[in-house]
Amino acid sequence: MSKNLTSRAEDYSKWYNELVVKADLAENSAVRGCMVIKPYGYAIWEKMQAELDRMFKETGHENAYFPLFVPKSLFEAEEKNAEGFAKECAVVTHYRLQNDPDNPGKLRVDPEAKLEEELVVRPTSEAIIWNTYKGWIQSYRDLPILINQWANVVRWEMRTRLFLRTAEFLWQEGHTAHATKAEALVEAEQMNDVYAEFAQNFMAIPVIQGVKTESERFAGALDTYCIEALMQDGKALQAGTSHFLGQNFAKAFDVKFTNNEGKQDYVWATSWGVSTRLMGALIMTHSDDKGLVLPPNLAPSQVVIVPIFKTDEQFELISDKAQAIIEELKALGVSCKFDKRTTHRPGAKFAQHELQGVPLRIAIGPKDLENNTVELARRDTLTKEVVQIDGIASTIKDLLTVIQDALYAKALNYRDEHITKVDDFETFKKVLETKTGFISAHWDGTPETEQKIKELTKATIRCIPMNNVKEEGVCVFSGKPSQERVLFAKAY
Amino acid sequence: MSKNLTSRAEDYSKWYNELVVKADLAENSAVRGCMVIKPYGYAIWEKMQAELDRMFKETGHENAYFPLFVPKSLFEAEEKNAEGFAKECAVVTHYRLQNDPDNPGKLRVDPEAKLEEELVVRPTSEAIIWNTYKGWIQSYRDLPILINQWANVVRWEMRTRLFLRTAEFLWQEGHTAHATKAEALVEAEQMNDVYAEFAQNFMAIPVIQGVKTESERFAGALDTYCIEALMQDGKALQAGTSHFLGQNFAKAFDVKFTNNEGKQDYVWATSWGVSTRLMGALIMTHSDDKGLVLPPNLAPSQVVIVPIFKTDEQFELISDKAQAIIEELKALGVSCKFDKRTTHRPGAKFAQHELQGVPLRIAIGPKDLENNTVELARRDTLTKEVVQIDGIASTIKDLLTVIQDALYAKALNYRDEHITKVDDFETFKKVLETKTGFISAHWDGTPETEQKIKELTKATIRCIPMNNVKEEGVCVFSGKPSQERVLFAKAY
Repeated sequence: MSKNLTSRAEDYSKWYNELVVKADLAENSAVRGCMVIKPYGYAIWEKMQAELDRMFKETGHENAYFPLFVPKSLFEAEEKNAEGFAKECAVVTHYRLQNDPDNPGKLRVDPEAKLEEELVVRPTSEAIIWNTYKGWIQSYRDLPILINQWANVVRWEMRTRLFLRTAEFLWQEGHTAHATKAEALVEAEQMNDVYAEFAQNFMAIPVIQGVKTESERFAGALDTYCIEALMQDGKALQAGTSHFLGQNFAKAFDVKFTNNEGKQDYVWATSWGVSTRLMGALIMTHSDDKGLVLPPNLAPSQVVIVPIFKTDEQFELISDKAQAIIEELKALGVSCKFDKRTTHRPGAKFAQHELQGVPLRIAIGPKDLENNTVELARRDTLTKEVVQIDGIASTIKDLLTVIQDALYAKALNYRDEHITKVDDFETFKKVLETKTGFISAHWDGTPETEQKIKELTKATIRCIPMNNVKEEGVCVFSGKPSQERVLFAKAY
Repeated sequence: MSKNLTSRAEDYSKWYNELVVKADLAENSAVRGCMVIKPYGYAIWEKMQAELDRMFKETGHENAYFPLFVPKSLFEAEEKNAEGFAKECAVVTHYRLQNDPDNPGKLRVDPEAKLEEELVVRPTSEAIIWNTYKGWIQSYRDLPILINQWANVVRWEMRTRLFLRTAEFLWQEGHTAHATKAEALVEAEQMNDVYAEFAQNFMAIPVIQGVKTESERFAGALDTYCIEALMQDGKALQAGTSHFLGQNFAKAFDVKFTNNEGKQDYVWATSWGVSTRLMGALIMTHSDDKGLVLPPNLAPSQVVIVPIFKTDEQFELISDKAQAIIEELKALGVSCKFDKRTTHRPGAKFAQHELQGVPLRIAIGPKDLENNTVELARRDTLTKEVVQIDGIASTIKDLLTVIQDALYAKALNYRDEHITKVDDFETFKKVLETKTGFISAHWDGTPETEQKIKELTKATIRCIPMNNVKEEGVCVFSGKPSQERVLFAKAY
């Protein structure tokens, strides 16, 4: 298999698709729109999960698990939510197959085994969860409920792309219940902050935190907070969302509680989620024409050691050095793999680790044995240097921090250079086509203008940034008065 | 809510059902046969997952993720496997709902959105995985593939019980591919050993390792290895299985490889899994009429501290002591929760922690402040003692090991007392009804006899133990010659 990637300049979309497959992250499956997440891709996802899970627990959340299926009648209960997801859901109608009398060896759906009520494969779990919470909540003493779930969900998307938009994807969905509106709002904002912190500190992705406009909100939410990232092709990517659901689901499922004054009230809700889509954001933010570039904080192996040898004796000596380095690194909390495969030559190993984005590569050859050195190569800068083995572990640990910070700084610089203030629609269109990125522009606040701009340019309002500066102006499209700028972009 | 449980002697099955719900482990959902795993139950499952995942990785396995859905044509490919699962599977036939014109506000399946090919919600993933492996394997260099998946699966069981048998359950499924039969056999046995080690060291459950008879094998396997445990009511529970699949799936999906002699051959396979059913085994092995009893190695909190106080000042002083103890325990790797809820009185807290099986409870009251002591209560023996605070952390750490070992010893003693050698069918029936447990008896090796015994007594052959002693004898039912004893029992 040729490992040569299409370059980003040539065809960004093709580059992405090839990279995901060639770096062994994921591939399409026999099921339309569903992907196979391969071990290397899944190892990165596991690292993300571990950090997010820790952060959720530190903010007081517990994990639980709710059913995969939502009975149609529950799915219908919250009208907007149902409307938002009904058109793209997988529906289970039968519970048995039988031998097909017309085709020996084949199976068919048993017409006798039709469900009385169809089951929707969860596209999101508000309905099944709020129907459950009804039984858990009587009094303010039962609140808050702070629960997260790691699960698979299915949305029957027509156009799918690995990680970015797949019919089935993996995610976490937090679902919380509160006694007051204020507390629910704090929760929704807090979890958006957690997402931003995770994106920045682990994924090395700078994000803009903001609020969605009404038309971009989650179906059933009163407010949707989000983190928006910018990819290398100048398109935005919504990386996480946190919803203030008001009392919509409590009303739909009749979830009331007795407050501390003895009065009955509906419960306030939030939900929040990030998914395997984050993998797409990670890939598209840092990688280059040679392959994946991984931030050290999420790399399955932060360092790989490749031995270069001709004789068994050389291999033994190199192996001893490698083991010593691995032990030292382990003690410092750095993960390191010794690639001692005999089925591949050093050149092929170099190419593979470059393609798979291992942050640091160590090569040890006969010369290094003589000089007590190694060759140390950075994946992000593609620079190499020969360093002494003595003290190498702490050198590496420091270097990993440098790399993590450098990736973030580079992405931040690119992102900041791609936020353009625009005040007229001609420039708006031009910037969008040539410079790309976020456009900061005044908007008159109406869904009509938003829709018109979308039709004319494919740009959507990504968010109204948090703590946005108030500024008198006129809408870039309608010329009507506006109090603040919002961020437009083409998006994934 | 009354926390009083039905006693085991009164109605074991009712005791189990009540305990699962009252200890906040799980509950039934609005979806037939599907459960909600509540945070406390899920926290125990997470502990199991973490240990198993570590053990899988230590034995060279990686995690990955394959699609939830299996297209019908793939599902059909391995005949026995399809036959085994076709009768109990959820089938997705449509991908969209629409507004029901006859019922405003209601949805119905959109008849226009019928799938060309139905999708089976995976009851197990051999089919989808082997169809994927076909693309991954060309040469012996691509082998072995050692992959595990943590996932949900659905089997449309008619009679369901929380954790023990649910329509949807969580599990892990390992799927490995090998160049030789010998290597696949070693893998299948190794993973059964891993399960046995986990059951014994973490769940404190003694298990018998063995091989299933042909009629009890996994559909599509050539051999099924298993671990069998004995519950307190004398019924056996299959806690994990590991299958040697031979070349069945490789043939069904045409997965060939070039071996190191340049010849083409079909790949050899194994699969192995444990599920949330383990929760049922854990509950039924150790718990008592007062509630759950958890082995310290799997308890979400190994210790809980309950403050007993009248004044704020007392609470502050107790709180300081508690924090100091928690810090010391944390340093020793012991998890401890301080139950400072003001909504519950100490008595209610005691009852709850007893019901939820926290291994050790510390109570600190005003007297303890004077004497620098605490009251330490063991959940397994229900014994209490007053101990000095100085050195308490290491006392507790040791005591947790004592408890873990004691639970195992108790379960082992019960299990060993409930293996009865029987040589005639009248005694067989009597032992099964009165003493219960495993019956070690000769069997003539035929499925007909096995079936007859099952019809007459409801007992099945749980396994032919590994390294079984060869012994001349005659079948307990047919009187035909037999070379070894096998283990019969009624089972979950």
